[in-house]
Amino acid sequence: MWEPEFLTTRHVIPRSHPRVESLLIRKKLVDGFDSGLVAREGLLAQGRGEAFDYLLGEKTGRPARRAIRAAAATLTLAEFPVISVNGNAAALCAAELVSLSMQAGAKLEVNLFYASKKREQAIVRTLRKCGAQKVLGTSPASSARLQGMDSARRMVDRDGILAADVVVVPLEDGDRTAALKSAGKTVIAFDLNPLSRTAQTAHITIVDNITRAAGLLAADIQKIAGKNAKVLHQIVSEFDNRSNLADSIAQIRGNLARRGGLA
Amino acid sequence: MWEPEFLTTRHVIPRSHPRVESLLIRKKLVDGFDSGLVAREGLLAQGRGEAFDYLLGEKTGRPARRAIRAAAATLTLAEFPVISVNGNAAALCAAELVSLSMQAGAKLEVNLFYASKKREQAIVRTLRKCGAQKVLGTSPASSARLQGMDSARRMVDRDGILAADVVVVPLEDGDRTAALKSAGKTVIAFDLNPLSRTAQTAHITIVDNITRAAGLLAADIQKIAGKNAKVLHQIVSEFDNRSNLADSIAQIRGNLARRGGLA
Repeated sequence: MWEPEFLTTRHVIPRSHPRVESLLIRKKLVDGFDSGLVAREGLLAQGRGEAFDYLLGEKTGRPARRAIRAAAATLTLAEFPVISVNGNAAALCAAELVSLSMQAGAKLEVNLFYASKKREQAIVRTLRKCGAQKVLGTSPASSARLQGMDSARRMVDRDGILAADVVVVPLEDGDRTAALKSAGKTVIAFDLNPLSRTAQTAHITIVDNITRAAGLLAADIQKIAGKNAKVLHQIVSEFDNRSNLADSIAQIRGNLARRGGLA
Repeated sequence: MWEPEFLTTRHVIPRSHPRVESLLIRKKLVDGFDSGLVAREGLLAQGRGEAFDYLLGEKTGRPARRAIRAAAATLTLAEFPVISVNGNAAALCAAELVSLSMQAGAKLEVNLFYASKKREQAIVRTLRKCGAQKVLGTSPASSARLQGMDSARRMVDRDGILAADVVVVPLEDGDRTAALKSAGKTVIAFDLNPLSRTAQTAHITIVDNITRAAGLLAADIQKIAGKNAKVLHQIVSEFDNRSNLADSIAQIRGNLARRGGLA
Protein backbone atom coordinates (compact mmCIF):
# COMPACT_ATOMS: atom_id res chain seq x y z
CA MET A 1 0.00 0.00 0.00
CA TRP A 2 1.23 3.46 -0.78
CA GLU A 3 2.02 5.38 2.37
CA PRO A 4 1.80 9.14 2.27
CA GLU A 5 4.85 11.20 3.04
CA PHE A 6 4.98 14.68 4.51
CA LEU A 7 7.14 17.54 3.39
CA THR A 8 8.92 19.74 5.86
CA THR A 9 10.84 22.73 4.53
CA ARG A 10 13.26 20.64 2.54
CA HIS A 11 12.78 17.18 3.91
CA VAL A 12 10.29 14.41 3.41
CA ILE A 13 9.17 12.64 6.57
CA PRO A 14 8.52 9.01 5.67
CA ARG A 15 5.63 7.27 7.48
CA SER A 16 8.16 4.67 8.65
CA HIS A 17 10.37 7.20 10.48
CA PRO A 18 10.65 6.14 14.12
CA ARG A 19 9.84 9.69 15.21
CA VAL A 20 7.16 10.44 12.61
CA GLU A 21 4.54 11.59 15.18
CA SER A 22 6.91 14.07 16.75
CA LEU A 23 8.08 15.33 13.36
CA LEU A 24 4.51 15.86 12.16
CA ILE A 25 3.69 17.84 15.30
CA ARG A 26 6.85 19.89 14.71
CA LYS A 27 5.66 20.56 11.16
CA LYS A 28 2.34 21.90 12.52
CA LEU A 29 4.25 24.46 14.59
CA VAL A 30 6.53 25.51 11.75
CA ASP A 31 3.49 25.87 9.46
CA GLY A 32 1.78 27.81 12.28
CA PHE A 33 4.77 30.10 12.44
CA ASP A 34 4.64 30.69 8.68
CA SER A 35 0.94 31.48 8.80
CA GLY A 36 1.33 33.98 11.66
CA LEU A 37 -0.19 31.89 14.46
CA VAL A 38 3.02 31.17 16.31
CA ALA A 39 5.65 33.55 17.68
CA ARG A 40 9.41 32.88 17.44
CA GLU A 41 9.35 32.27 21.16
CA GLY A 42 6.56 29.77 20.52
CA LEU A 43 8.95 27.67 18.45
CA LEU A 44 11.42 27.65 21.38
CA ALA A 45 8.61 26.67 23.76
CA GLN A 46 7.57 23.85 21.45
CA GLY A 47 11.17 22.58 21.44
CA ARG A 48 11.15 22.48 25.25
CA GLY A 49 7.87 20.57 25.15
CA GLU A 50 9.27 18.11 22.60
CA ALA A 51 12.16 17.28 24.90
CA PHE A 52 9.88 16.56 27.84
CA ASP A 53 7.50 14.54 25.67
CA TYR A 54 10.47 12.50 24.46
CA LEU A 55 11.43 11.86 28.08
CA LEU A 56 7.84 10.88 28.91
CA GLY A 57 8.05 8.26 26.17
CA GLU A 58 5.70 10.23 23.89
CA LYS A 59 2.63 8.56 25.30
CA THR A 60 -0.14 9.39 27.77
CA GLY A 61 0.93 7.83 31.03
CA ARG A 62 -1.17 6.88 34.03
CA PRO A 63 -0.63 10.17 35.88
CA ALA A 64 -1.90 12.06 32.81
CA ARG A 65 -4.94 9.73 32.60
CA ARG A 66 -5.76 10.48 36.24
CA ALA A 67 -5.37 14.26 35.75
CA ILE A 68 -7.56 14.13 32.64
CA ARG A 69 -10.30 12.36 34.60
CA ALA A 70 -10.15 14.91 37.43
CA ALA A 71 -10.20 17.73 34.85
CA ALA A 72 -13.24 16.20 33.15
CA ALA A 73 -15.11 16.08 36.47
CA THR A 74 -14.04 19.65 37.32
CA LEU A 75 -15.19 20.97 33.96
CA THR A 76 -18.51 19.14 34.22
CA LEU A 77 -19.13 20.70 37.65
CA ALA A 78 -18.00 24.17 36.54
CA GLU A 79 -20.51 27.02 36.26
CA PHE A 80 -18.52 29.12 33.85
CA PRO A 81 -15.49 27.34 32.37
CA VAL A 82 -13.19 29.11 29.88
CA ILE A 83 -10.44 27.66 27.69
CA SER A 84 -7.54 30.05 27.12
CA VAL A 85 -5.98 29.68 23.66
CA ASN A 86 -2.57 30.91 22.52
CA GLY A 87 -0.75 30.59 19.19
CA ASN A 88 0.92 27.27 19.90
CA ALA A 89 -2.29 25.68 21.14
CA ALA A 90 -4.14 26.89 18.03
CA ALA A 91 -1.41 25.61 15.71
CA LEU A 92 -1.23 22.23 17.45
CA CYS A 93 -4.88 21.37 18.04
CA ALA A 94 -7.44 24.06 17.17
CA ALA A 95 -10.04 21.45 16.16
CA GLU A 96 -9.60 19.47 19.38
CA LEU A 97 -9.93 22.64 21.49
CA VAL A 98 -13.11 23.72 19.70
CA SER A 99 -14.58 20.27 20.19
CA LEU A 100 -13.48 20.31 23.85
CA SER A 101 -15.17 23.68 24.35
CA MET A 102 -18.42 22.27 22.96
CA GLN A 103 -18.18 19.11 25.01
CA ALA A 104 -17.40 21.07 28.19
CA GLY A 105 -19.77 23.96 27.52
CA ALA A 106 -16.72 26.21 27.87
CA LYS A 107 -16.00 29.52 26.18
CA LEU A 108 -12.84 30.05 24.14
CA GLU A 109 -10.65 33.08 24.85
CA VAL A 110 -7.54 34.13 22.95
CA ASN A 111 -4.72 35.07 25.26
CA LEU A 112 -1.22 35.79 24.07
CA PHE A 113 2.04 36.19 25.94
CA TYR A 114 3.55 38.16 23.08
CA ALA A 115 0.57 40.36 22.26
CA SER A 116 -0.09 41.02 18.60
CA LYS A 117 -3.37 42.02 16.94
CA LYS A 118 -2.38 40.17 13.78
CA ARG A 119 -1.64 36.94 15.57
CA GLU A 120 -4.79 37.30 17.64
CA GLN A 121 -6.83 37.52 14.43
CA ALA A 122 -5.02 34.55 12.89
CA ILE A 123 -5.93 32.48 15.96
CA VAL A 124 -9.58 33.57 15.84
CA ARG A 125 -9.75 32.65 12.13
CA THR A 126 -8.24 29.24 12.82
CA LEU A 127 -10.70 28.53 15.65
CA ARG A 128 -13.65 29.70 13.51
CA LYS A 129 -12.56 27.47 10.65
CA CYS A 130 -12.75 24.59 13.12
CA GLY A 131 -16.33 25.46 14.03
CA ALA A 132 -15.97 27.91 16.94
CA GLN A 133 -19.04 30.18 17.15
CA LYS A 134 -17.62 32.84 19.42
CA VAL A 135 -14.08 33.62 20.47
CA LEU A 136 -13.46 36.02 23.36
CA GLY A 137 -10.40 38.08 24.21
CA THR A 138 -10.23 40.32 21.15
CA SER A 139 -12.59 43.16 22.02
CA PRO A 140 -10.91 46.16 23.72
CA ALA A 141 -14.35 47.15 25.08
CA SER A 142 -14.59 44.06 27.26
CA SER A 143 -10.92 43.96 28.22
CA ALA A 144 -10.12 43.86 31.95
CA ARG A 145 -7.03 43.56 34.10
CA LEU A 146 -6.05 40.45 35.99
CA GLN A 147 -4.42 41.46 39.29
CA GLY A 148 -0.86 40.43 40.15
CA MET A 149 0.55 40.54 36.62
CA ASP A 150 2.79 43.08 34.94
CA SER A 151 2.88 41.85 31.39
CA ALA A 152 0.49 42.36 28.52
CA ARG A 153 -0.94 39.04 29.56
CA ARG A 154 -2.74 40.58 32.52
CA MET A 155 -5.47 41.60 30.08
CA VAL A 156 -8.38 39.22 30.11
CA ASP A 157 -11.96 39.34 28.85
CA ARG A 158 -14.52 40.48 31.44
CA ASP A 159 -17.06 38.18 29.77
CA GLY A 160 -14.56 35.33 29.77
CA ILE A 161 -11.63 34.56 32.08
CA LEU A 162 -12.45 37.42 34.49
CA ALA A 163 -15.84 35.85 35.19
CA ALA A 164 -14.78 32.21 34.97
CA ASP A 165 -14.69 29.77 37.87
CA VAL A 166 -12.57 27.21 35.98
CA VAL A 167 -9.88 28.15 33.44
CA VAL A 168 -8.11 25.67 31.17
CA VAL A 169 -4.63 26.91 30.25
CA PRO A 170 -2.76 25.00 27.60
CA LEU A 171 0.95 25.82 27.53
CA GLU A 172 0.77 28.67 30.03
CA ASP A 173 3.55 30.61 31.78
CA GLY A 174 4.03 30.47 35.53
CA ASP A 175 3.19 34.09 36.34
CA ARG A 176 -0.18 33.91 34.75
CA THR A 177 -1.06 30.59 36.28
CA ALA A 178 -0.27 32.04 39.71
CA ALA A 179 -2.32 35.19 38.98
CA LEU A 180 -5.31 33.11 37.85
CA LYS A 181 -5.08 31.04 41.02
CA SER A 182 -4.82 34.18 43.18
CA ALA A 183 -7.91 35.51 41.44
CA GLY A 184 -9.78 32.49 42.79
CA LYS A 185 -9.97 30.49 39.57
CA THR A 186 -9.60 26.73 39.50
CA VAL A 187 -6.77 26.21 37.02
CA ILE A 188 -6.43 23.16 34.77
CA ALA A 189 -3.09 23.25 32.94
CA PHE A 190 -1.56 21.23 30.14
CA ASP A 191 2.19 21.20 30.72
CA LEU A 192 4.77 18.64 29.59
CA ASN A 193 7.26 19.78 32.24
CA PRO A 194 6.10 18.48 35.62
CA LEU A 195 8.67 20.70 37.38
CA SER A 196 7.51 23.98 35.83
CA ARG A 197 5.95 26.68 37.93
CA THR A 198 2.70 26.30 35.98
CA ALA A 199 2.65 22.56 36.64
CA GLN A 200 3.36 23.09 40.32
CA THR A 201 0.86 25.95 40.69
CA ALA A 202 -2.19 24.67 38.81
CA HIS A 203 -4.92 22.74 40.64
CA ILE A 204 -4.90 20.00 38.02
CA THR A 205 -1.88 19.55 35.75
CA ILE A 206 -2.15 17.28 32.74
CA VAL A 207 1.47 16.31 32.01
CA ASP A 208 0.91 15.20 28.46
CA ASN A 209 1.17 16.42 24.92
CA ILE A 210 -1.92 18.54 24.28
CA THR A 211 -2.29 16.94 20.84
CA ARG A 212 -3.04 13.65 22.60
CA ALA A 213 -4.63 14.94 25.82
CA ALA A 214 -7.21 17.45 24.49
CA GLY A 215 -9.14 14.71 22.70
CA LEU A 216 -8.90 12.38 25.70
CA LEU A 217 -10.29 15.11 27.94
CA ALA A 218 -13.28 15.67 25.63
CA ALA A 219 -13.90 11.91 25.57
CA ASP A 220 -13.76 11.68 29.37
CA ILE A 221 -16.29 14.50 29.71
CA GLN A 222 -18.64 12.57 27.45
CA LYS A 223 -18.02 9.38 29.45
CA ILE A 224 -18.93 10.92 32.83
CA ALA A 225 -21.85 12.99 31.50
CA GLY A 226 -24.45 10.82 33.23
CA LYS A 227 -22.85 10.75 36.68
CA ASN A 228 -24.32 12.79 39.54
CA ALA A 229 -22.56 15.68 41.25
CA LYS A 230 -21.61 13.63 44.31
CA VAL A 231 -19.63 11.15 42.21
CA LEU A 232 -17.98 13.99 40.30
CA HIS A 233 -17.01 15.78 43.51
CA GLN A 234 -15.49 12.54 44.74
CA ILE A 235 -13.37 12.17 41.58
CA VAL A 236 -12.10 15.72 42.10
CA SER A 237 -11.39 15.34 45.82
CA GLU A 238 -9.55 12.06 45.34
CA PHE A 239 -7.12 13.71 42.94
CA ASP A 240 -3.88 14.98 44.46
CA ASN A 241 -1.94 17.13 41.99
CA ARG A 242 1.30 17.11 43.96
CA SER A 243 1.56 13.34 44.21
CA ASN A 244 0.39 12.99 40.63
CA LEU A 245 3.22 15.29 39.48
CA ALA A 246 5.65 13.16 41.47
CA ASP A 247 4.37 10.16 39.48
CA SER A 248 5.06 11.98 36.19
CA ILE A 249 8.57 12.76 37.38
CA ALA A 250 9.00 9.09 38.27
CA GLN A 251 7.79 8.20 34.76
CA ILE A 252 10.56 10.38 33.25
CA ARG A 253 13.17 8.96 35.63
CA GLY A 254 12.14 5.44 34.68
CA ASN A 255 12.40 6.20 30.95
CA LEU A 256 15.83 7.76 31.43
CA ALA A 257 17.01 4.69 33.29
CA ARG A 258 15.66 2.30 30.66
CA ARG A 259 16.83 4.23 27.62
CA GLY A 260 20.18 5.00 29.17
CA GLY A 261 20.74 1.30 29.71
CA LEU A 262 20.73 1.77 33.48
CA ALA A 263 17.87 -0.61 34.21
CA MET B 1 25.16 49.99 41.31
CA TRP B 2 23.05 50.19 38.21
CA GLU B 3 22.56 46.80 36.71
CA PRO B 4 21.91 46.56 33.01
CA GLU B 5 18.74 44.97 31.77
CA PHE B 6 18.20 43.19 28.52
CA LEU B 7 15.32 43.61 26.15
CA THR B 8 13.67 40.69 24.48
CA THR B 9 10.96 41.38 21.93
CA ARG B 10 8.61 43.00 24.40
CA HIS B 11 10.04 42.10 27.73
CA VAL B 12 12.87 43.30 29.88
CA ILE B 13 14.92 40.59 31.54
CA PRO B 14 16.07 41.89 34.91
CA ARG B 15 19.54 40.81 36.09
CA SER B 16 17.87 39.43 39.20
CA HIS B 17 15.60 37.02 37.30
CA PRO B 18 16.28 33.48 38.56
CA ARG B 19 16.60 32.22 34.98
CA VAL B 20 18.48 35.23 33.57
CA GLU B 21 21.29 33.14 32.01
CA SER B 22 18.87 30.92 30.16
CA LEU B 23 16.79 33.90 29.02
CA LEU B 24 19.88 35.72 27.71
CA ILE B 25 20.91 32.63 25.74
CA ARG B 26 17.38 32.44 24.37
CA LYS B 27 17.65 36.06 23.32
CA LYS B 28 20.86 35.27 21.37
CA LEU B 29 18.97 32.66 19.37
CA VAL B 30 15.97 34.90 18.69
CA ASP B 31 18.35 37.69 17.61
CA GLY B 32 20.20 35.13 15.47
CA PHE B 33 16.91 34.18 13.88
CA ASP B 34 16.14 37.83 13.11
CA SER B 35 19.57 38.36 11.57
CA GLY B 36 19.29 35.30 9.33
CA LEU B 37 21.76 33.03 11.18
CA VAL B 38 19.21 30.65 12.62
CA ALA B 39 16.49 28.60 10.90
CA ARG B 40 12.98 28.17 12.30
CA GLU B 41 13.91 24.59 13.06
CA GLY B 42 16.94 25.97 14.91
CA LEU B 43 14.61 27.69 17.37
CA LEU B 44 12.87 24.37 18.02
CA ALA B 45 16.24 22.66 18.49
CA GLN B 46 17.31 25.37 20.93
CA GLY B 47 14.11 24.76 22.91
CA ARG B 48 14.93 21.06 23.17
CA GLY B 49 18.42 21.95 24.35
CA GLU B 50 17.03 24.38 26.94
CA ALA B 51 14.90 21.62 28.45
CA PHE B 52 17.84 19.27 28.80
CA ASP B 53 20.06 22.02 30.19
CA TYR B 54 17.36 22.79 32.75
CA LEU B 55 17.31 19.12 33.73
CA LEU B 56 21.11 19.08 33.99
CA GLY B 57 20.85 21.95 36.48
CA GLU B 58 22.26 24.49 33.98
CA LYS B 59 25.82 23.81 35.03
CA THR B 60 28.83 21.89 33.77
CA GLY B 61 28.78 18.61 35.64
CA ARG B 62 31.60 16.17 36.26
CA PRO B 63 30.80 13.99 33.25
CA ALA B 64 31.04 17.07 31.00
CA ARG B 65 34.37 18.05 32.63
CA ARG B 66 35.76 14.60 31.86
CA ALA B 67 34.54 14.68 28.26
CA ILE B 68 36.03 18.17 27.79
CA ARG B 69 39.41 16.94 29.05
CA ALA B 70 39.35 13.92 26.70
CA ALA B 71 38.31 16.23 23.85
CA ALA B 72 41.19 18.61 24.64
CA ALA B 73 43.69 15.75 24.50
CA THR B 74 42.15 14.40 21.27
CA LEU B 75 42.29 17.81 19.60
CA THR B 76 45.89 18.35 20.74
CA LEU B 77 46.90 14.99 19.23
CA ALA B 78 44.93 15.58 16.01
CA GLU B 79 46.73 16.11 12.71
CA PHE B 80 43.89 17.88 10.97
CA PRO B 81 41.02 18.88 13.26
CA VAL B 82 37.97 20.71 11.89
CA ILE B 83 35.14 22.44 13.77
CA SER B 84 31.79 22.22 12.01
CA VAL B 85 29.64 25.33 12.55
CA ASN B 86 25.90 25.68 11.99
CA GLY B 87 23.53 28.62 12.54
CA ASN B 88 22.69 27.88 16.16
CA ALA B 89 26.35 27.43 17.10
CA ALA B 90 27.24 30.73 15.42
CA ALA B 91 24.38 32.56 17.14
CA LEU B 92 25.22 31.11 20.53
CA CYS B 93 29.02 31.33 20.65
CA ALA B 94 30.78 32.44 17.47
CA ALA B 95 33.57 34.16 19.43
CA GLU B 96 34.19 31.08 21.59
CA LEU B 97 34.34 28.83 18.52
CA VAL B 98 36.80 31.11 16.75
CA SER B 99 38.97 31.20 19.83
CA LEU B 100 38.68 27.40 20.18
CA SER B 101 39.76 26.96 16.56
CA MET B 102 42.86 29.07 17.20
CA GLN B 103 43.67 27.27 20.44
CA ALA B 104 43.20 23.85 18.82
CA GLY B 105 44.77 24.72 15.46
CA ALA B 106 41.49 23.61 13.92
CA LYS B 107 39.80 24.85 10.75
CA LEU B 108 36.24 26.19 10.80
CA GLU B 109 33.71 24.81 8.32
CA VAL B 110 30.12 25.98 7.87
CA ASN B 111 27.72 23.09 7.61
CA LEU B 112 23.98 23.48 7.56
CA PHE B 113 21.16 21.00 7.93
CA TYR B 114 18.74 23.34 6.21
CA ALA B 115 21.00 24.54 3.40
CA SER B 116 20.75 28.20 2.46
CA LYS B 117 23.35 30.37 0.74
CA LYS B 118 22.11 33.43 2.59
CA ARG B 119 22.38 31.81 5.99
CA GLU B 120 25.77 30.37 5.08
CA GLN B 121 27.02 33.88 4.31
CA ALA B 122 25.54 35.28 7.53
CA ILE B 123 27.44 32.63 9.50
CA VAL B 124 30.70 33.38 7.66
CA ARG B 125 30.29 37.10 8.38
CA THR B 126 29.63 36.42 12.05
CA LEU B 127 32.71 34.19 12.37
CA ARG B 128 34.86 36.76 10.51
CA LYS B 129 33.66 39.52 12.81
CA CYS B 130 34.92 37.39 15.69
CA GLY B 131 38.38 37.13 14.13
CA ALA B 132 38.17 34.01 11.94
CA GLN B 133 40.70 34.21 9.10
CA LYS B 134 39.32 31.50 6.89
CA VAL B 135 35.98 29.72 6.90
CA LEU B 136 35.54 26.57 4.80
CA GLY B 137 32.38 24.97 3.45
CA THR B 138 31.14 27.75 1.17
CA SER B 139 33.04 27.12 -2.06
CA PRO B 140 31.18 24.89 -4.57
CA ALA B 141 34.56 24.12 -6.19
CA SER B 142 35.87 22.32 -3.11
CA SER B 143 32.57 20.66 -2.22
CA ALA B 144 32.60 16.88 -1.81
CA ARG B 145 30.14 14.19 -0.77
CA LEU B 146 30.21 12.39 2.52
CA GLN B 147 29.14 8.76 2.00
CA GLY B 148 26.11 7.31 3.77
CA MET B 149 24.00 10.49 3.82
CA ASP B 150 21.01 11.45 1.74
CA SER B 151 20.41 15.04 2.80
CA ALA B 152 22.01 18.27 1.67
CA ARG B 153 24.21 17.83 4.66
CA ARG B 154 26.28 15.16 2.93
CA MET B 155 28.18 18.00 1.26
CA VAL B 156 31.45 18.74 3.01
CA ASP B 157 34.61 20.63 2.09
CA ARG B 158 37.36 18.52 0.57
CA ASP B 159 39.91 20.82 2.22
CA GLY B 160 38.05 20.57 5.51
CA ILE B 161 35.88 17.83 6.98
CA LEU B 162 36.60 15.38 4.12
CA ALA B 163 40.32 15.50 4.97
CA ALA B 164 39.96 15.82 8.75
CA ASP B 165 40.95 13.16 11.27
CA VAL B 166 39.03 14.81 14.11
CA VAL B 167 35.72 16.68 13.65
CA VAL B 168 34.03 18.76 16.34
CA VAL B 169 30.26 18.86 15.82
CA PRO B 170 28.28 21.26 17.94
CA LEU B 171 24.55 20.55 17.90
CA GLU B 172 24.68 17.89 15.20
CA ASP B 173 22.01 15.49 13.94
CA GLY B 174 22.37 11.74 14.34
CA ASP B 175 22.64 10.80 10.66
CA ARG B 176 25.59 13.03 10.07
CA THR B 177 27.39 11.98 13.20
CA ALA B 178 27.04 8.35 12.08
CA ALA B 179 28.27 9.20 8.57
CA LEU B 180 31.30 11.06 9.93
CA LYS B 181 32.14 8.09 12.13
CA SER B 182 31.73 5.66 9.21
CA ALA B 183 34.08 7.85 7.20
CA GLY B 184 36.75 7.15 9.81
CA LYS B 185 36.62 10.50 11.61
CA THR B 186 36.99 10.82 15.35
CA VAL B 187 33.84 12.73 16.34
CA ILE B 188 33.65 15.11 19.29
CA ALA B 189 30.04 16.24 19.83
CA PHE B 190 28.38 18.86 21.99
CA ASP B 191 24.91 17.56 22.80
CA LEU B 192 22.69 18.36 25.78
CA ASN B 193 20.64 15.20 25.30
CA PRO B 194 22.70 12.23 26.50
CA LEU B 195 20.17 9.82 24.92
CA SER B 196 20.34 11.29 21.41
CA ARG B 197 21.76 9.31 18.54
CA THR B 198 24.53 11.91 18.16
CA ALA B 199 25.44 11.57 21.83
CA GLN B 200 25.42 7.78 21.62
CA THR B 201 27.36 7.68 18.32
CA ALA B 202 30.15 10.21 18.86
CA HIS B 203 33.51 9.13 20.24
CA ILE B 204 33.46 11.90 22.83
CA THR B 205 30.18 13.57 23.80
CA ILE B 206 30.25 16.75 25.84
CA VAL B 207 26.82 16.83 27.51
CA ASP B 208 26.83 20.52 28.32
CA ASN B 209 25.59 23.84 27.03
CA ILE B 210 28.03 24.88 24.29
CA THR B 211 27.97 28.44 25.64
CA ARG B 212 29.70 27.13 28.77
CA ALA B 213 31.65 24.21 27.32
CA ALA B 214 33.36 25.80 24.29
CA GLY B 215 35.36 28.15 26.49
CA LEU B 216 36.21 25.38 28.95
CA LEU B 217 37.48 23.22 26.09
CA ALA B 218 39.76 26.00 24.83
CA ALA B 219 41.06 26.50 28.39
CA ASP B 220 41.75 22.76 28.78
CA ILE B 221 43.72 22.70 25.53
CA GLN B 222 45.89 25.53 26.85
CA LYS B 223 46.31 23.70 30.15
CA ILE B 224 47.58 20.46 28.62
CA ALA B 225 49.71 22.15 25.95
CA GLY B 226 52.97 21.16 27.61
CA LYS B 227 52.19 17.47 28.15
CA ASN B 228 53.81 14.82 25.98
CA ALA B 229 51.92 12.56 23.59
CA LYS B 230 52.04 9.55 25.90
CA VAL B 231 50.19 11.40 28.65
CA LEU B 232 47.65 12.73 26.14
CA HIS B 233 47.04 9.25 24.72
CA GLN B 234 46.47 8.02 28.24
CA ILE B 235 43.85 10.72 28.91
CA VAL B 236 42.06 9.68 25.71
CA SER B 237 42.22 5.93 26.40
CA GLU B 238 40.99 6.32 29.97
CA PHE B 239 37.84 8.06 28.73
CA ASP B 240 34.81 5.82 28.22
CA ASN B 241 32.02 7.68 26.42
CA ARG B 242 29.32 5.11 27.19
CA SER B 243 29.85 5.14 30.93
CA ASN B 244 30.30 8.91 30.87
CA LEU B 245 26.90 9.29 29.17
CA ALA B 246 25.39 7.05 31.83
CA ASP B 247 26.78 9.49 34.41
CA SER B 248 25.09 12.42 32.65
CA ILE B 249 21.80 10.50 32.66
CA ALA B 250 22.29 9.86 36.37
CA GLN B 251 22.89 13.62 36.83
CA ILE B 252 19.51 14.36 35.22
CA ARG B 253 17.76 11.66 37.22
CA GLY B 254 19.24 13.07 40.42
CA ASN B 255 18.07 16.59 39.57
CA LEU B 256 14.59 15.33 38.79
CA ALA B 257 14.41 13.53 42.11
CA ARG B 258 15.64 16.58 44.05
CA ARG B 259 13.52 19.14 42.26
CA GLY B 260 10.48 16.91 42.29
CA GLY B 261 10.76 16.61 46.03
CA LEU B 262 11.48 12.88 45.76
CA ALA B 263 14.84 12.93 47.51
